[in-house]
Amino acid sequence: MIPRDQCLEKAFHPRAVAIVGVSRNDVDSTPDYTGLKILRLLQGAGFEGQLYPINPSAATIAGVKAYPTVIAVPERLDLVIVAVPAAAVPQVLEDCAIAGALNVHICSAGFSETGEVEGAKIEKRVRDIALRGDFQVVGPNCLGYHVPSAHLNMYMNVPLAQGPVAFVSQSGGHAQTFVTHGPALGIGFSKVISYGNALMMDSTDFLEYLATDSETSIICLYIEGVKDGGRLIRLVREIGPSKPVIVWKGGLTSSGARAAVTHTSSLSGDKRIWEAFFKQTGAIGVDSIEEMADVTMTFLRLKPLLRANVAVLVGGGGNSVANADMCAREGVAVPALANETRMRLMKLLSLVNQSIVNPIDSPRVLYDPSLLRQVLDTVAADPLIDVIILHISTIFRRRASAETVAGFKKCIADFGKQDSSSKPVVVAMRAAETSGGEAEVLIREMREANITTYYSLRSACRALKLFAGYHAFMAQNRAGQPSAPQALTGRP
Amino acid sequence: MIPRDQCLEKAFHPRAVAIVGVSRNDVDSTPDYTGLKILRLLQGAGFEGQLYPINPSAATIAGVKAYPTVIAVPERLDLVIVAVPAAAVPQVLEDCAIAGALNVHICSAGFSETGEVEGAKIEKRVRDIALRGDFQVVGPNCLGYHVPSAHLNMYMNVPLAQGPVAFVSQSGGHAQTFVTHGPALGIGFSKVISYGNALMMDSTDFLEYLATDSETSIICLYIEGVKDGGRLIRLVREIGPSKPVIVWKGGLTSSGARAAVTHTSSLSGDKRIWEAFFKQTGAIGVDSIEEMADVTMTFLRLKPLLRANVAVLVGGGGNSVANADMCAREGVAVPALANETRMRLMKLLSLVNQSIVNPIDSPRVLYDPSLLRQVLDTVAADPLIDVIILHISTIFRRRASAETVAGFKKCIADFGKQDSSSKPVVVAMRAAETSGGEAEVLIREMREANITTYYSLRSACRALKLFAGYHAFMAQNRAGQPSAPQALTGRP
Repeated sequence: MIPRDQCLEKAFHPRAVAIVGVSRNDVDSTPDYTGLKILRLLQGAGFEGQLYPINPSAATIAGVKAYPTVIAVPERLDLVIVAVPAAAVPQVLEDCAIAGALNVHICSAGFSETGEVEGAKIEKRVRDIALRGDFQVVGPNCLGYHVPSAHLNMYMNVPLAQGPVAFVSQSGGHAQTFVTHGPALGIGFSKVISYGNALMMDSTDFLEYLATDSETSIICLYIEGVKDGGRLIRLVREIGPSKPVIVWKGGLTSSGARAAVTHTSSLSGDKRIWEAFFKQTGAIGVDSIEEMADVTMTFLRLKPLLRANVAVLVGGGGNSVANADMCAREGVAVPALANETRMRLMKLLSLVNQSIVNPIDSPRVLYDPSLLRQVLDTVAADPLIDVIILHISTIFRRRASAETVAGFKKCIADFGKQDSSSKPVVVAMRAAETSGGEAEVLIREMREANITTYYSLRSACRALKLFAGYHAFMAQNRAGQPSAPQALTGRP
Repeated sequence: MIPRDQCLEKAFHPRAVAIVGVSRNDVDSTPDYTGLKILRLLQGAGFEGQLYPINPSAATIAGVKAYPTVIAVPERLDLVIVAVPAAAVPQVLEDCAIAGALNVHICSAGFSETGEVEGAKIEKRVRDIALRGDFQVVGPNCLGYHVPSAHLNMYMNVPLAQGPVAFVSQSGGHAQTFVTHGPALGIGFSKVISYGNALMMDSTDFLEYLATDSETSIICLYIEGVKDGGRLIRLVREIGPSKPVIVWKGGLTSSGARAAVTHTSSLSGDKRIWEAFFKQTGAIGVDSIEEMADVTMTFLRLKPLLRANVAVLVGGGGNSVANADMCAREGVAVPALANETRMRLMKLLSLVNQSIVNPIDSPRVLYDPSLLRQVLDTVAADPLIDVIILHISTIFRRRASAETVAGFKKCIADFGKQDSSSKPVVVAMRAAETSGGEAEVLIREMREANITTYYSLRSACRALKLFAGYHAFMAQNRAGQPSAPQALTGRP
């Protein structure tokens, strides 16, 4: 049998791909994936390998020669994408075994996740055949492998953004959302793996591959259940120090766990066990795609931080209060600035309508780039402060001239270009949720100017806290003895 | 002495307004408010009363005849807006007393909030003069009165949106944010009052006025501190049953409380006392402008609900899990649908890739308006469900044809037009934070189609929970005996 990692290497960079269940025309106008849609996606993405649509009777489909079965294909298949109804899947797998295919992606749903006897029976048959075959199976009920560098595109209407981030997701929908929206945050992907019901390969199998994948330096996971909890713990502990592992665990509430059963037939596991998992492994726990994206962006852009005490620069006294409350609620310290810092700021800023304790309430600083630079230098020199957050709103954009906005961007960009001891300056947006689209324009402008920009102060706080928490965990573990891992099954 | 409410009536609908401290040209390019900026704001808003710029030497400013002092103005002033430096304010107040002005708005900052001896001394002098004068003072350190129906506009670059919502805010910045962004959510304003340091009039004074104000049916408050906690409790208890009172209390964390001292010189008070306040009065507690806006929108659009059990209609199994987790974390129940409901849904929807327990995972429902209508009717008939949330993403907008989107909107609008027993259907956006602006467009389209639309499932959950919590509190209090109020000062 070919080792799994070698098989997967062929799945991620295939030369020959068959798609089973490609009709001549799409009979379906719903958003469901069909064989024909997948074929067109690969064609549209400029996939350079051979494509083999499988259809019992068609000669060509979408300009490509079709074959009645995978057995009829004249070369060894690196990847077979199966998009036929569940009941027809066993026969396709029998054919794959005969054809000597290396990887099978079962896209189809309708197995154990339906909760019906019939679905579970088919799943068992599929498993029996797969265990006899010399190939690796991903799925069923998933979107399989998406590899921008290989032009292997599985998602409709997304940019093919290449980068160092891998996403292993038990949900194809979440994978779709991440690949759709990640690029706006500067996130590009090495491999995006949607693995669904995990019939043969589970998250841990992919994690093992990604541990040594040179294309990947950050690993994101969305998991509902895991089969071998001990293996997950061991892998995350091994990988964590060199590649941060960001984990969104779905189904931690009882309502969510109920939904997970009907989604991927997963047993979610006790919430306390997962809390122990995060504590033991240094995995970075998030609870939404948005948070996963924010944290990933932070890892891509910021130098390591062991602590995330923030200084917040805001416009308005009410915002100072709101920001201090928000940071405190999210567990991020907003320490009063050192006396020396305050004295220097006193010289730079006039007193009226401005506070310099932290948050620093000085609206006009945003409108005066040379003053802003002096304030950033002064605050960055404060040993109590690790990160400076500029909290801006669309009001800034409405009031500031184009020249002022350009000066603001340049000031932050220049500040970031300082020597390696400089502290990060990030932007967080205010009241973006109610801005009717204006905030989005400003966020985009900031990101295009290469400024680390968060959607809100809350998201900035959460991401920075998780980011610094990871680095502190790893530093501590390098220094001391790691604690013995506990099992993910059974009570802690 | 003229009763306060009569004075305030003149402040909100003034015929004669003086602005003290109007220079011929703005020397300042910062966003700070100046007398000249305020004059131009009122002119730009089409204010129809008389405007009197006060300047020691100018004959006319911005086309309007100027006067050297308020004493020289030939008619009784309903409102004097003071925009001179703090040190010059006492003399202006002496003049106002002589001129017999009815209301004074001290816009200027530089008083006790500076933490400096000089500021506190000036504030004491101002108070002494005000106590002798027969006028009402709002401020200092605030933006005073903003009344769209009177074309009295105090905020730059905002639409003058008239409506039944009053906002009493200790922060001018928060007031600015709310009036800037509220209209996109369908929020219009009766009175927006920024009262700053509360030298003479506090939130409670304005609350008393708004209690009987026929223009106002929903009252929002942002407060950092309050002078007479007992009066606040009494007022909110009295007003609450007829007009919901939505309260954002700033400075509930120690960092926030520290910022509140430097902002409005307010003592924030013990967190537990404020928790008791919310529990006793039925005031609706929020913790950001965004949440205030979401809750206000809910009150403007939804019929009363005593409970907010939700059914969530989503696309994708992963989203089902995420949504159930999100609702549960926010304390909103997502009950399993009744057996009868499930059986009916089984007939409407095929099984594969769809779950009908709740959340209902059936992507194609969104793309088929007549099916959507049947599903809505079926779910709304379930006695366990109070609100139906359609959780959609920009993927819907990318995939659906214009015709499908139009059908979707019409279906929801038609459903809302049913008899009074119908249940509300709202839309919540998915992953808007990472959509790079696309979600905003979709949100705007939905709101323009008169659909209640939230920025995220989290914001929908929080708003619906607070909304139903208010109605349940009021129903319970009508039924039983209200508990005795406790003081807001001292420990509970």
